[in-house]
Amino acid sequence: MSEGEFALLRRYFQPRRFQHGKQGVELVQGIGDDAAILGCPPGRQWVLSVDTLCSGVHFPAEAPAADIAHRALAVNLSDLAAMGAEAAGFTLALSLPEAQPAWLEEFSSALAQSARRHHLDLVGGDLGQGPLSLTLQVHGLVEPGRALLRSGAQPGDLIYVSGTLGDAAGALALNYLGQSNGEADHDYLRSRFYRPVPRLELGRALGGLASAAIDISDGLLADLGQILHCSEAGAELEPEAIPLSSSLRRCLGDSRARQTAMEGGDDYELCFTIHPQREHQLPVLANTPLQRIGRIIDTPGLHALEENRRRPLRPRGWQHFANQPKAP
Amino acid sequence: MSEGEFALLRRYFQPRRFQHGKQGVELVQGIGDDAAILGCPPGRQWVLSVDTLCSGVHFPAEAPAADIAHRALAVNLSDLAAMGAEAAGFTLALSLPEAQPAWLEEFSSALAQSARRHHLDLVGGDLGQGPLSLTLQVHGLVEPGRALLRSGAQPGDLIYVSGTLGDAAGALALNYLGQSNGEADHDYLRSRFYRPVPRLELGRALGGLASAAIDISDGLLADLGQILHCSEAGAELEPEAIPLSSSLRRCLGDSRARQTAMEGGDDYELCFTIHPQREHQLPVLANTPLQRIGRIIDTPGLHALEENRRRPLRPRGWQHFANQPKAP
Repeated sequence: MSEGEFALLRRYFQPRRFQHGKQGVELVQGIGDDAAILGCPPGRQWVLSVDTLCSGVHFPAEAPAADIAHRALAVNLSDLAAMGAEAAGFTLALSLPEAQPAWLEEFSSALAQSARRHHLDLVGGDLGQGPLSLTLQVHGLVEPGRALLRSGAQPGDLIYVSGTLGDAAGALALNYLGQSNGEADHDYLRSRFYRPVPRLELGRALGGLASAAIDISDGLLADLGQILHCSEAGAELEPEAIPLSSSLRRCLGDSRARQTAMEGGDDYELCFTIHPQREHQLPVLANTPLQRIGRIIDTPGLHALEENRRRPLRPRGWQHFANQPKAP
Repeated sequence: MSEGEFALLRRYFQPRRFQHGKQGVELVQGIGDDAAILGCPPGRQWVLSVDTLCSGVHFPAEAPAADIAHRALAVNLSDLAAMGAEAAGFTLALSLPEAQPAWLEEFSSALAQSARRHHLDLVGGDLGQGPLSLTLQVHGLVEPGRALLRSGAQPGDLIYVSGTLGDAAGALALNYLGQSNGEADHDYLRSRFYRPVPRLELGRALGGLASAAIDISDGLLADLGQILHCSEAGAELEPEAIPLSSSLRRCLGDSRARQTAMEGGDDYELCFTIHPQREHQLPVLANTPLQRIGRIIDTPGLHALEENRRRPLRPRGWQHFANQPKAP
């Protein structure tokens, strides 16, 4: 391997593959200088989100390069969706143990494809040696005052989620994250892990409408817990209302599927709250079903509402460091 | 270890420690939501730079946490300096094998101290498990048309560098990167590796004055080579003029010190070019000596000028993947 960092950057991440000219954002200087330069459209604010994915932690070491690329961009864009922002560009810091041309070709093609779908420019990056890990930072735009924060939920607000929950966590629990085995339900759950759909269109439509929002990356209970913490409120959930895919029910059975939907993360659906009088304004979007699952209450904590009785729910979900295996 | 990611973020990277209110940039939403929101002052452009530092690659595994923090922020700020931008904020994505309170306390204190010195807000981040590595992305501002690019050098322009070169590479070559041994020259070289001074003030002063600029991270010849590549020109260097510290000369001897100054990176000094008629306008800054080391020429490639004769110089320097050890 005599090809250096600069040659690899030029070969796999060259501007013509990665610059799509997002309307409204001027890319003054992209890849190829000490830093990138972006013009900011007047009357907009920048929204920034950063996430790292490490091999063996956030995806299995044997995961295909294309799947890693799709997932890395999607999980970052999901944060913009949860803010009600429009995506504009991103940077990539990639560490690799060695520069394998086949891996780089597959990875960069998939990343470019995913970026193109969202009209997103790769504006800069860093490529170096190290254990396989990727840090993406996405940059979006929002009109002042329209961002969806975690802190705006009020008692009486209804709690909604998009899509179905627990699918990606099911794939993880069932060990479906290696190569596809061709079985339809398994492949569906597997695709929900690697190719989550960032709910950008929904997030944009909820700006100025929802009172609080978060994307579900650590699990419904944990992430809704963040809204409750920031909004200083409690919640009452109807576990029966939590939307489950038929694939997850078939693979895990109803009871375990429901538990996985509450505690597992990685689907990157949105959880949001809305005042009941605004419920009728909720957007109807193709391929984005919405489901009401509970409401915000005065009483602190998370509660399940079953047969008209409240029982406390323990907010669990994936947390780095808290979930690490105990020493024997 | 039962403390989770959110608790660790709140404890070590809490807003009051890290938000300093840079004049001109409105921090609408900092740490604690799905993404950060920044207002962009009118008439300015955003400048973005991202760099990853991996343990065992960019710093030795035994490096003190405070040194890692200082170096991580400095190398990123250096990219803003090389663009002539003013620093405004940064994000941190930190991967750790385990959450050691002593390490996190030392690291976050040093990072906050370094950020304070540059009036820099930590606007967001990500904390997860994985092999020790940090990705910082800094955000700066520049007036349209005043950014220092790599592509503007013209034949006849003079080539300048700031400070002294080769010190950090000397520390690396001499194995001074572990704990300090109390010897003055060694400690000086060691501090040049871990605590490089980003030349932000110089970069700001060079905006609209220098014709091209880069920061020296991979070695003078490699980085000047980037200016030549982007400007489609060649250069003639006077090796005798390259500024060396007396510590480096004492530790390595004159000849090896000079070689190290040309080929070694990691000092994060600026290399820039300027039209000869503007040379007299160069800023005089305390603690930032400037030295003319050659000029841009028509003939492609890098050349040394010795006793009035040109000899070709091979542009070498650190490049990830190209410099990796050969298999036996």
